[in-house]
Amino acid sequence: MTTNWTLARRAEKMNPSVIREILKVTEKPGIISLAGGLPSPKTFPVADFAGACAAVLAQDGPGALQYAASEGYGPLRQAIADFLPWDVDAEQVLITTGSQQALDLVAKILIDENSRVLVETPTYLGALQAFTPMEPAVVSVASDDEGVLIDDFKAKAGTGAGKARFLYVLPNFQNPTGRTMSEARRAALVQAAAELGVPLLEDNPYGDLWFDNPPPLPLTARNPEGCIYMGSFSKVLAPGLRLGFVVAPKAIFPKLLQAKQAADLHTPGFNQRMVAEVMKGGFLDRHVPTIRALYKQQCEAMLAALAKEMQGLSVQWNRPDGGMFLWLRLPEGVSAIDLLPQAVERNVAFVPGAAFYATEADPRTLRLSFVTSTVEQIATGIAALADAIRNAKKG
Amino acid sequence: MTTNWTLARRAEKMNPSVIREILKVTEKPGIISLAGGLPSPKTFPVADFAGACAAVLAQDGPGALQYAASEGYGPLRQAIADFLPWDVDAEQVLITTGSQQALDLVAKILIDENSRVLVETPTYLGALQAFTPMEPAVVSVASDDEGVLIDDFKAKAGTGAGKARFLYVLPNFQNPTGRTMSEARRAALVQAAAELGVPLLEDNPYGDLWFDNPPPLPLTARNPEGCIYMGSFSKVLAPGLRLGFVVAPKAIFPKLLQAKQAADLHTPGFNQRMVAEVMKGGFLDRHVPTIRALYKQQCEAMLAALAKEMQGLSVQWNRPDGGMFLWLRLPEGVSAIDLLPQAVERNVAFVPGAAFYATEADPRTLRLSFVTSTVEQIATGIAALADAIRNAKKG
Repeated sequence: MTTNWTLARRAEKMNPSVIREILKVTEKPGIISLAGGLPSPKTFPVADFAGACAAVLAQDGPGALQYAASEGYGPLRQAIADFLPWDVDAEQVLITTGSQQALDLVAKILIDENSRVLVETPTYLGALQAFTPMEPAVVSVASDDEGVLIDDFKAKAGTGAGKARFLYVLPNFQNPTGRTMSEARRAALVQAAAELGVPLLEDNPYGDLWFDNPPPLPLTARNPEGCIYMGSFSKVLAPGLRLGFVVAPKAIFPKLLQAKQAADLHTPGFNQRMVAEVMKGGFLDRHVPTIRALYKQQCEAMLAALAKEMQGLSVQWNRPDGGMFLWLRLPEGVSAIDLLPQAVERNVAFVPGAAFYATEADPRTLRLSFVTSTVEQIATGIAALADAIRNAKKG
Repeated sequence: MTTNWTLARRAEKMNPSVIREILKVTEKPGIISLAGGLPSPKTFPVADFAGACAAVLAQDGPGALQYAASEGYGPLRQAIADFLPWDVDAEQVLITTGSQQALDLVAKILIDENSRVLVETPTYLGALQAFTPMEPAVVSVASDDEGVLIDDFKAKAGTGAGKARFLYVLPNFQNPTGRTMSEARRAALVQAAAELGVPLLEDNPYGDLWFDNPPPLPLTARNPEGCIYMGSFSKVLAPGLRLGFVVAPKAIFPKLLQAKQAADLHTPGFNQRMVAEVMKGGFLDRHVPTIRALYKQQCEAMLAALAKEMQGLSVQWNRPDGGMFLWLRLPEGVSAIDLLPQAVERNVAFVPGAAFYATEADPRTLRLSFVTSTVEQIATGIAALADAIRNAKKG
């Protein structure tokens, strides 16, 4: 009596998340993790959540604990529409179970087997994982410090049945590079996408985490009918509630909603009401600046440590204007994947850049997070990383 | 400047949930809804949840609000393994965002385009909605009051590349019919499935809601390596937390976990800890009997009202041993879909049975829920339904 588990073809293509496997390794005590994208727990407004839980259950406990509409909780949809910096109709806001689910739902409704899908170089690993089960042909668009190159986007947009279903972009403090798309590049990209008739999928989990100046207006604000916008409460409130959202044009909202119904009926109503309660009275306007100040300080600590420790090692890195990550390029001949065990031996971890390329990877790149560790840990961790690089250069 | 939204083929096949569209209609004030499957809000342990929220945030607020493992919260996985009536390793338990998500994940890893998938006649609508995006060929297996007929299962199992990827069954107080699979049928089904090498997908959201005696042992307990088991906290605690789980054999657990990571990273950790906290000290053993007593009373009220009001109308119905639903068959020539507007006119709603058939529907069937309405509402609603049927028979 043995059972034949015949897997779907897409399951054969699924691989464990490199990031999550690395997170497991780095959970061993004593490791300074510059790898994971875990927001600093110092930024979680625990007391405000405790008050919100009590209020939600006292005001309408049975309502908060019952099945609810797939679209999401009305007052939260409205609060999101009001918070966004362009004219958004709350009817176009769909609440998702984290913004990872938004990627899954968009993939389901827009990707057929072999559909052409465009991404930045490099791009967010979680997006690739969400798209892969729908078996697209993923094409990397060449990118520089300001995001995708318009000429390469035009060259790779495809035509007819081979036209790209969408271009996925993360314009603000990108994961993994930390780079931000300039105002000029945004204007040109929206123009080119509209001319080509290629939809843009805009992911913006980090946009509120700017250090000195807010980033330019989202792409979606410039052509709402040609873009899907994704946002998240994971970085401005807390990731453990799994609350994200999509703003989708009327042309596709109903299909996205049907995919949502089939995926999990609705996002937990209790969590939606908690966040709507916490957001009352302009809470985010007071809370988010404290996150910005903390992350800016930690980013500056990392930049200072890099300047000090990497002297003479031919290492390059960028200076992010916000977010959680920076991007580092190792000297010629040093591979980030080979370097990782040597770094872990020295009690510091990072994510090799190779994880973030849809096609050909640059093996010399790696991602560093400056938000999970303290200023002291960052200094120690970067020194250890420099030591590992020095050692690798010798070898 | 117009954007071409080219939908995936699967999105073209998606249709709005009939149940959810009906729920919208029945939300108008004054309607007695015997339609939706909403648990009675009287059964939600609001005060216990309030205590659990406060405890979880006080004990480890930052931990509860951080990103977490895709598998789920360890103590909750263990509590589920301990609660189930066979020897379950907590390592084989995957926490899902409601058991609807479990259906979505299983569909992703086991269904290719045109894969043969077997279901009961009738079957749970939400399962059909979760399977459809993966484009299976769904085949209905003939069923009687005890569940699927073994001979028809054997006849429809398929062979070679056409062998069924799984048979989906809901053995306890089935949605929509309320029927329960007998001990003899369970034994025969597990035997036949193992001989054929066809996996069983066992859905058990209602199993704890028995009236007088617990249902026979789950199918999965009889052959754990040949079955996937799905459970839910929606009916024994509250649906608004969206907490379900899967028990999966080692052969497929890693793929299910990868699908889970790609779908929403993990189920809200805060909710998982809340439920683990509420479950401490045998809470369910005290709480669930109160739900059983309430639903038994409401079911008996519905059976009494049917016996009284349907006299002489040639209407048939069953007597469930638990759960939330019963199944009714209208007299010859009366269609449930045609009857619905006439019922709504009389301020009572139900779900036409046609929604629950994967292939050919019996148009005379309909589903009644006895859990959402009070005993008084049930009496009034059944009288109104009888009036609508009497009227339809005349027409």
